[in-house]
Parts: sequence; structure tokens; C-alpha cells
Amino acid sequence: MLNVGVVGATGYTGEKILDILLKHPQVRISYICAKIDKAQKISEIFPRFAGKIDLVCDNLDVEKAIKSCDLIFLAVPHKISMEIAPIFLKANKVVIDLSADYRLKNTEEYKTWYGLAHKDKKNLGIAVYGLPELYRERIKKAKLIANPGCYPTAAILALAPALTAGIVDTNSIIIDAKSGVTGAGRKASLDFFFSEINENLKAYKINEHQHMPEINQFLSILASKKINAVFVPHLIPMNRGILETIYVKLNKVKSEKDILALYKRFYKTEKFVRVYDAGQVPQTRNVFDANYCDIGIKVDKNKKLLIIVAAIDNLMKGAASQAVQNMNIVCGFKEDTGLK
Amino acid sequence: MLNVGVVGATGYTGEKILDILLKHPQVRISYICAKIDKAQKISEIFPRFAGKIDLVCDNLDVEKAIKSCDLIFLAVPHKISMEIAPIFLKANKVVIDLSADYRLKNTEEYKTWYGLAHKDKKNLGIAVYGLPELYRERIKKAKLIANPGCYPTAAILALAPALTAGIVDTNSIIIDAKSGVTGAGRKASLDFFFSEINENLKAYKINEHQHMPEINQFLSILASKKINAVFVPHLIPMNRGILETIYVKLNKVKSEKDILALYKRFYKTEKFVRVYDAGQVPQTRNVFDANYCDIGIKVDKNKKLLIIVAAIDNLMKGAASQAVQNMNIVCGFKEDTGLK
Amino acid sequence: MLNVGVVGATGYTGEKILDILLKHPQVRISYICAKIDKAQKISEIFPRFAGKIDLVCDNLDVEKAIKSCDLIFLAVPHKISMEIAPIFLKANKVVIDLSADYRLKNTEEYKTWYGLAHKDKKNLGIAVYGLPELYRERIKKAKLIANPGCYPTAAILALAPALTAGIVDTNSIIIDAKSGVTGAGRKASLDFFFSEINENLKAYKINEHQHMPEINQFLSILASKKINAVFVPHLIPMNRGILETIYVKLNKVKSEKDILALYKRFYKTEKFVRVYDAGQVPQTRNVFDANYCDIGIKVDKNKKLLIIVAAIDNLMKGAASQAVQNMNIVCGFKEDTGLK
Amino acid sequence: MLNVGVVGATGYTGEKILDILLKHPQVRISYICAKIDKAQKISEIFPRFAGKIDLVCDNLDVEKAIKSCDLIFLAVPHKISMEIAPIFLKANKVVIDLSADYRLKNTEEYKTWYGLAHKDKKNLGIAVYGLPELYRERIKKAKLIANPGCYPTAAILALAPALTAGIVDTNSIIIDAKSGVTGAGRKASLDFFFSEINENLKAYKINEHQHMPEINQFLSILASKKINAVFVPHLIPMNRGILETIYVKLNKVKSEKDILALYKRFYKTEKFVRVYDAGQVPQTRNVFDANYCDIGIKVDKNKKLLIIVAAIDNLMKGAASQAVQNMNIVCGFKEDTGLK
Repeated sequence: MLNVGVVGATGYTGEKILDILLKHPQVRISYICAKIDKAQKISEIFPRFAGKIDLVCDNLDVEKAIKSCDLIFLAVPHKISMEIAPIFLKANKVVIDLSADYRLKNTEEYKTWYGLAHKDKKNLGIAVYGLPELYRERIKKAKLIANPGCYPTAAILALAPALTAGIVDTNSIIIDAKSGVTGAGRKASLDFFFSEINENLKAYKINEHQHMPEINQFLSILASKKINAVFVPHLIPMNRGILETIYVKLNKVKSEKDILALYKRFYKTEKFVRVYDAGQVPQTRNVFDANYCDIGIKVDKNKKLLIIVAAIDNLMKGAASQAVQNMNIVCGFKEDTGLK
Repeated sequence: MLNVGVVGATGYTGEKILDILLKHPQVRISYICAKIDKAQKISEIFPRFAGKIDLVCDNLDVEKAIKSCDLIFLAVPHKISMEIAPIFLKANKVVIDLSADYRLKNTEEYKTWYGLAHKDKKNLGIAVYGLPELYRERIKKAKLIANPGCYPTAAILALAPALTAGIVDTNSIIIDAKSGVTGAGRKASLDFFFSEINENLKAYKINEHQHMPEINQFLSILASKKINAVFVPHLIPMNRGILETIYVKLNKVKSEKDILALYKRFYKTEKFVRVYDAGQVPQTRNVFDANYCDIGIKVDKNKKLLIIVAAIDNLMKGAASQAVQNMNIVCGFKEDTGLK
Repeated sequence: MLNVGVVGATGYTGEKILDILLKHPQVRISYICAKIDKAQKISEIFPRFAGKIDLVCDNLDVEKAIKSCDLIFLAVPHKISMEIAPIFLKANKVVIDLSADYRLKNTEEYKTWYGLAHKDKKNLGIAVYGLPELYRERIKKAKLIANPGCYPTAAILALAPALTAGIVDTNSIIIDAKSGVTGAGRKASLDFFFSEINENLKAYKINEHQHMPEINQFLSILASKKINAVFVPHLIPMNRGILETIYVKLNKVKSEKDILALYKRFYKTEKFVRVYDAGQVPQTRNVFDANYCDIGIKVDKNKKLLIIVAAIDNLMKGAASQAVQNMNIVCGFKEDTGLK
Repeated sequence: MLNVGVVGATGYTGEKILDILLKHPQVRISYICAKIDKAQKISEIFPRFAGKIDLVCDNLDVEKAIKSCDLIFLAVPHKISMEIAPIFLKANKVVIDLSADYRLKNTEEYKTWYGLAHKDKKNLGIAVYGLPELYRERIKKAKLIANPGCYPTAAILALAPALTAGIVDTNSIIIDAKSGVTGAGRKASLDFFFSEINENLKAYKINEHQHMPEINQFLSILASKKINAVFVPHLIPMNRGILETIYVKLNKVKSEKDILALYKRFYKTEKFVRVYDAGQVPQTRNVFDANYCDIGIKVDKNKKLLIIVAAIDNLMKGAASQAVQNMNIVCGFKEDTGLK
């Protein structure tokens, strides 16, 4: 049994990690903590865990965490991760970080988008981006895994086959993204008050979202070429789910059939990416509470335009279940353990 | 033209009062204010008012308010009202207070339920409860109107005919109330975060809600007898609307037909209370954005039980539009002006 | 491996049964069918099943079903069940029926509430009501299990301890029930159109719901006395979840503490009923997608009134997962297999 | 007083037209009808109209309609309109048609997209497209007004200033549209069942929606050049509201400031189009239940890409209130009467 700790257990992502780990046959949750006013049983904070887990949630006690865990999930905001990850790494623990702190290789860019200097350049160098479908081999040997952001997960998986095959105009990518509300984390802001979200629809941070540099960094690697995609996120009145509709020019006329075949081939051996047949379009309910990224494509031949629709559950493949998938890989478990 | 001020213009209720007043032909909104970090055009705070109202919203400036208004709506939390109402009353302004501060006649009870001593006993004595269907004549001559709470409005109107007629066991009243989220006001609390409310349903403050003493005070007056109703509120994943299902024992066997006739008679001349025909049941959509209280009844003859279902829009008949109805009455306007 | 068939696999309940069985380690889904225009892979009907189950869903083929299954779930509307259950029973299959056909012992009552004569009185005699917390021993030996309705499951579990202990006035029971929309099944009716339900709240079938006789039958058994509870269901704008707020007079003054102790004792050994500590109140999110029935109580001493709040997921403990729990019992599996 | 009839009074659009007309000071609703099983008071069908309108809704009686009305709204599905509009036109009535029947000038295209031959080519020739901001002068003299579709209204208004000014690559237009559910009309389809829509998000009819030819026809007129825009609609779990995010290449480098100035100039005298200041983005709540089209723009200078966000209420500017705006124009009323 692997002893696992979850730092930040009271956020949406932390809660979901616990939920998944409780059904994982090779893991024992041995430590949990969160920024909290008063230590409390986790089953009191989340009554749905009553009878399933009894641990007390208190503020982080580094020594206790180190003593009780082999592997640590950091489900904390950016900035916090780079303060505590080094301690766990030094103590030889595997760290799976769900914050943005170890995703961007360029620390200048980090400063631009997150508003502060990076504090742990050393470990940034060894961090592996935890998108298994693209970086599985590196994840196997990682000590520090930077778990991808929710929007980037869908965008990168949706574009990887086309970029790798070199069939698109890399300067033409437009990502129109739509997300449920839990993507914003659990925080007491008037912006996410029920009646501000319900029966409302809006775009936000147009071409200014902090996930843009992450998306662009990895799209650029795939294309071996600097990419600056247009990225417009929208907030949808639902709890969970991301749907991205991506528009990109083909650099030669290609049939839908050929491109679909390319996509199917690319993800042939992947359990958690499902490429839909022609005429089928993903919807978020199909991936609800699951680790899948579902992808559908449509080609507008006259316009030489490829339209890709990708759906994930932002708390699952976009965060918690992908983190567990990474844990499975780095620990040598079957990759879909606890994720079926 | 009546010059009207709205204190607390940025809350849900304040916004709704503005909305109604903008369509009112005999009123000019001459002053608005709210607790606010930085003065801002109200049309910037609520873009839907763009092109309709241009006033700047700043913190309360009592002198300016007094100078510019004939009548003031206080759409502020309890405790604040009793601090500022006396000033406006002294300046001879009519005050319509939407907080709880002038609803409870018993200051001990006020202290028990609102956690602080009442600071304006003098004006409490002259305050008139603004439920026009029961207190219209007094409202006509009022200087200070205590606009009813949302739950009490539905409960009192639903029970008034039966209590007045003396046909029910006053010791048996059970009010199972369900409310949309705006009833809680606009405040940055995690409890009202979209994903905490959406796809969830809960009871709260069982027999402990601060609207209970208000309900009981007025039911007792109607019955000429001390009433302690059981009151269980529930939070419903929707923005607006209150539905109350009320259970009360009949003190003699009465047919549904007779009781329905009694209800229809009681509200015969009332424009804003609609009693449904037998077999029809109110739903909140029927009163959405309207000043109606819709009432349906059902009798379980074997059990001698009267079931009353009442629906209001909590922001309208439960707050803003009822306040405007009171303004119409006290100002001698046609009672439904701006409310059709 | 047990070979299991699901008749009615395309309804909400059928889909949920498949979902649970797919994670069940001792079961193989060997047959599925539904009323369908054209045979289709179940993973095409529910794309979320892609990669998990490959069976084709066609109209019922009795012979094929009998050949391929040891146990059959009937997730079909009432009336259909009593036509096909006899065939499977004759072929010596265990039948778990999720319709209402085998729940009411009195066929006159069946006719009154469901509008047609009962066609299988013979098997009605051997049917066991599948509420494991009350009828586990009988379920173990059952051939035909009548899986309880969603409203009755919550109501009966909520009242069982109090009725068994004889502490309540059996003539005073009021059940104010609130349900998400999937409780109504998947059918193309304008009543359940999104915009008719969203942002709306209503009571329906007041004291006329077909689950009433089922509730009353089993409450009467528990009390050894004819019970006619008042039952008012409400439709809530959410997908899943039932919350019932139950009001019942105590026949002697009892403290909340004593009654809570009674409830905790009653369900002490039950894995799937959680009685909350004093001051805690169930909400539907706590039981979402789980087999739990959560119960909280509150006593109004002055009124000698017991208020019970019970929450279930209507598709789970109210239908599919309770059916699997019954399967586990009748097959001798660990009772919580596949349900943790 | 103008005598007005509404054919199709029981759909979402018909209901909304009634709602608006009831507050219109120069109009009397003199006739209503709908496809209906049994004649019924409209206030029984929509209880929210109780006390406001008493007319009985029956199936269309052409003679009665002609006798009682000066102007007729046709809020019926396509195909029906072209069967009945000719009759009313012949009787010299003004017809405002909310179906698609008189929008497409090319009858071949009509056949392609709506699946049947056009039956009234004669009147198609005299029909005026009811988008007042572009065609006001023609509307003034119209006998037959083709009220625009909801998606086209937002798309055309959003693109008109840029296309008219000739600053965009007309071959590069991508319209990513998101709509609430009432856009689909009120019909008993499983696709719009509450639990199929709620907590779900999907694209549909990608580049195949019947509003495409309408959009393209009018964009082409504005650009004096054949345009084929890419159009991807999405279904959002909310009742009302359309948000369109439109991506289009600039054909020369233009600053956001300049383009914003161009947009503000273009709509300077329009009451119902609000162009937002830089940095402000429309959201659907800002136009809820109002006749506005709100527009915001953002320029990605590096990519020479113009991003336009437009919001309307699909039932209002996208249907009913725009129809009333057209009535006001054609009847010589003040254009915003009843729409403030």
C-alpha cells in the first residue's frame, strides 16, 4: 500500500482526489491538511465522506506529512506550491503538484502571468508536465509532476495530432473555451455567487487568461514552432465540465475522413482519449466524473477549416483524476487503477 | 413628480427597486447610495441600466439625501436601518424600510433574534407594517413603513383568511417554506457559491429562522391569540421565488369548496392576491417578476387538514414591489402604478 | 461471475444500473434490452459508456434473455413488469423489479392508483419488498424482489425507528417531499422541458401521488396500525436528489437527545443509513451518486413535534443502487460490493 | 388603439409578445389563437396572465382574425406562415412573421435548409427583413415583415459596422454562438428534457444550422460580396440568452480604439444597441428581458484579429420585442413604446 498525502484537501480538487483515492485498491490516504481555522474531521467538512474516511484535517504539519507519506498531492493555489514542494522533494517524496507553479518553463513568463517571481527554479528544471498521453515515459521517472491546467489539458490533447502531423497553419489557432464554475476553485467571491452565475453567460479574460502561456508553451513544443493561440474562455452556469471548440486552418486540403483517421491513429492505444466517429460531437455529460478527454472533429472543406470539439470534466481529467493517473504511472500501478 | 431615494442601491432588493421605479410614471429617482469602496455610476455596476439611469452611487451622504428626496427606501441590512431612519424621519421624510428593524414590536424579541438591542424604540412605536392587504388604512397615514420579510409575506397572506374566520387549530400550523437564493441577499459567502447551491437541496435554520417571530407576531394578531408556528425553510437551486406549503388542522369539518369560497371572498377586492380555483396549484413561475401572491388550497377531509400553497417572488411581493406598492398607497398614487 | 440482464436499459434507472454493474467485480452484464426503434450499441446511446461496454440494445427477446442471464433487473414502467416477470420467474431466474407492480399487496389499491387490474396475483404473493434495512432476511431467500419507490424509501427509513418504538401519533404524519427531475423518468413530455422546470418550483399531486399507498402500506406494517400519511411532493430544478421533511407529533414528551439515540441505535449496524448528530441536517449533495439514506432529526418540545429530514439520491438508494444492494443480498455477495 | 392578433400564442415567443403588448399603451390584443386540442382561456394556460387578459385561445379562425385585427403577429413554425400570411395580406392586414418563411430571398436555399418548396414567392418579394437598425426606412412602408432569427440578429448587428467599413477579411468570419434553451421553441422532445440539458454543454449542428443561410445572406449584402461564415451553435443550460463570440481577421492593422470608435459611431442613434467601452464585455444577464443587443470588442493586434462579443435575449431582441419594435415602426408609434 502506498501512503499518500493530500495538501489542500478542502478545495474542489482536493475533495475529488480523496474521492478517487478512497476507491483506489493500492493506496492508503495517510495524511490530509488544508488552510483551516480549526482542525476538523474531514467527514464533518464533507458529510458525504461519513463512514468512509476518518482523518482530521488541520493546517499543514510538514514533519508529520513527511513521516506519514510516500507521495504528496499539492492541491493548493499557485505560489504556495513552490514554497512547500522543495521540502517534500528534499525528503525524497514524490510530489504531484496541481498548481501552476511548475508548468511554465520560462520564469519571466511566470512572473508576467502570476505576478510574482518564481522561487524554486531548481526544481522547475526537473518538473515533468503530467499529460500522460504525451509525456508518459518522462512521468515514469519523475520526482516532481506538474499536473496540467484544465483548459490546457483539453486544448493540447485536441490539437496534438494535427500539430504533430503538421497539417495546420500554426498561426491560425482559435480556442473558444467554455467551463463550469468549479474550474475557478472554491472561494468566497461575489463573482461566483449562485445568482450571478445562474441564468447568465459571459466571456471573461479574453486573450488574457493565465492558462494561455501554458497552452502556447506545449502547443509550440508539439509544432516545433512558436505558437500564440487566441484563447477566449466563457463561464457556463453548471458545476463541472469544459467544452472547447477549436478553429484552425488546414495548410492543405484534407478530408474529414483522413483527419479523423489521423486522430484515431494518434490516440489508438490511449484508454482515456476517445475520438468520436464522423458526425458525433462530444458533450460534457459524456465525461462527467470520468478521466476521459472526448474529441470530435468536423472539416469545412471550402474554408479549409478544421473544427475540433473537446470535452473533459475539469475536476477529473482537468485536475484530480489526471493527477491520480500520473500517480499510477509514476508508481508503476496499472494506469487506469481507480479510474475505471 | 415624487423625488425618491434608494439607500442600499447595489443589493438585489435595491437594484429591483430601481428597476421598478424607472418604469413608474410619477416618480423621479433623485438619490441613490450604497456601502461602496469607490463612487461609481450605477450603470457601470449594473450594465443593464445603461442608457436608463445615470446617477452616481456613492456612500450615504445624509444631507444630500435629505435635500434631494421626499421619500426614502432603506434597502439595507437590519441594524443599519435603525441608525439612519430616525434622521430621515426627523427631516420629515417618509421612510420605507426593507430591513427587519421596525417589524417586531417587542424589543426583547428583537434582541433575541437579531443579537443586539434596539436603538430606536421611539419610531418603532409609529412604524406601520407594510402588508397592504391587511393594513392599507394605516399605511395611508404612515411616516415609517416596515416592509415585510419575504417568508412572512407569503405565510401571513396564506393564513389570514383562515385565521380571521377562526376555522383552524392555531396550535397546529406547520410552514414548510422553499426559497430561491436571492432571498439571502448579495454577499460573498461560500455558502452561496454557485456549486454549493446548484444540484443541491437542503433545509436550514429549522425552527430557528429570524423570520419566525415576525410571522408569529402577525399570525397572533390575526387570530387574537398567541401563535407559535413551526417554520422550516429550505434553499432551492434557483435565483428567485418562494413557495410555502402550509399544513394546518381545521377545528371543524369544512369542505374544500367552502374554504375556497372564504379565501376568494377575503381577497375579492385585492389586485395582488390571486386565489386559485379548485385543483389549481401555484408555482413560482406564475409570479416571477410580479407583485402577486398566488394561493391555492387543498383539504384532506379525513384528516381535517387544510393544505395551503402560496407563491411569491421574494424580490417582488417579498421585497421591492411590495415596497413600491406601499409607496403608492402612502403617496396617494393608484396602488398598482408601475406594478402592472 | 453472475450473468445479469437489464430490461429497460435506456431509462435513467437502467443506465444507472449499468453504470454500477460495470464496476461490480462479481457480475457480468450479459444481456440488455429496451423499447427501441432500432437496435443500437448501448455505447452509441450513452457515449459515456464508450470503451466500457459493447452490448447491442434491442427490443426484449425473452428467450435470449433467459439463456444469457441468471438474474434480471426490470427497469420498466409499471404494467410491463407484471407481463414479463412471470416468464422469467417460471424459467427460474431471480427477478428484481424496479416498477411498482409488485409493491402493493392489495390488488384493489393497485387498480385504484395505477388504473388497471393486476395481472399476476400469483407472484405478487411471493414478492419481497426490497428495503434491506427492514426486510434483509426475506430478501436473502427471495425469487422476486419489489424494489421500493424513491419517495417511499426515504419516508419509510425516516419513520421506521419512531414507528417501531411507538413514540409518535400515527395519525399525524405529514411528509413534505422534494425531488429532482429524474425521479419522473426519461420521457418526452412538455412538463419536463428544461425551461418549464428551471427557475421554477411547484407542488404537484398533493395527497394524490401514486407512491402514497406504498408509503402507507409499509408505515402501517411498522406501526401495526392503519396509517394514512399526508404526502405532498414538490418538483425541484435539479437532476437528482430527494429531500423529505417529515412532521409528526410525539405521543409523549421526548427529548431530541433520546430520540436521536433511538435512531442511532436502530441503524447501528446499517452501512447505508447515516443518522446525523444533533444540529446537523442532511442535504442531497451528501448522498449524490451514493447508496446512502441520510437522516437528521429535530424536536420542537413545546409542540411535541418531531421533525425528520431524510435525503437520498433518487436514482441510487431510490432505485438503481438499492436494486444492486438487493442483488448482493440475494446472491450472497458482500452487501456493499460495487456500492462503496 | 391598434387591434392586434397573435397567431401561435402558446409558444415561448407568442407568450412573450402577449406579455409585451399587455404593457403597450397604444395596442389592444383583440385576437389570439394557437394549435390547441381544446379552446381554453389564455390565463389558464399561462396562470401568470390571470387578471390581465381574459381572451380564449382556440385554433385559428381566419375570418374572426381578419375581422378583429389590424395587424397580425405570426409566432408559428416555418411552413405554417407561408400558408396563412397570404390570406391576411390579401385582407390588407399588416403581417409580422416570426418564422423563417420570408427571410431567405433565394427559394432554392429555402428548400435546401427547410426541406420543402416555398409556397408564396409572390409575397416573398415584398417582405422586408425586420432588423430596424439596418432596414428602418423599408420597415416603415412594409406590409409583410420577416422578423429576424435570434442567432442572425446578434451576428448581423455585431458584424455590420466592420463589414460596412470594409475593414475585415470577409472570408475569415467565425461565429461561435451559445444559446439558452428557449431558442429551440416549446416542444415535447427528449432532447430538451431538463436532465438532458442541465449540467451539460454541447455543440450542435456544426456548420449545419438553418440560421446560417440567413446570416450569410445579410452579411453578404452588408459586404457587397458573397460571405460564408463559419457558424457553430452551442446549447447552454439556461432558459434565455444568446452570446456570440465572433472572430474575424482585420484586413489592415487597426487599433482597438479606432474600431471601437467606428462601432460607437455606427450605432450612435440607436436606442437598442449598446456598444461597450474598452475592457467591458457583454453578458446575457445585462439584456435579460430587454430589447437590447449589447456589443463589446477586443482586438488581438499581433494576429490582426477582431473579437466581437454580442449578447441578446433570444426571446426579446431575438424574437418578441424586436417584433414589437417593428410594429412600432410600421405603425408610426414611438419606436421604444412598450419596450423601455
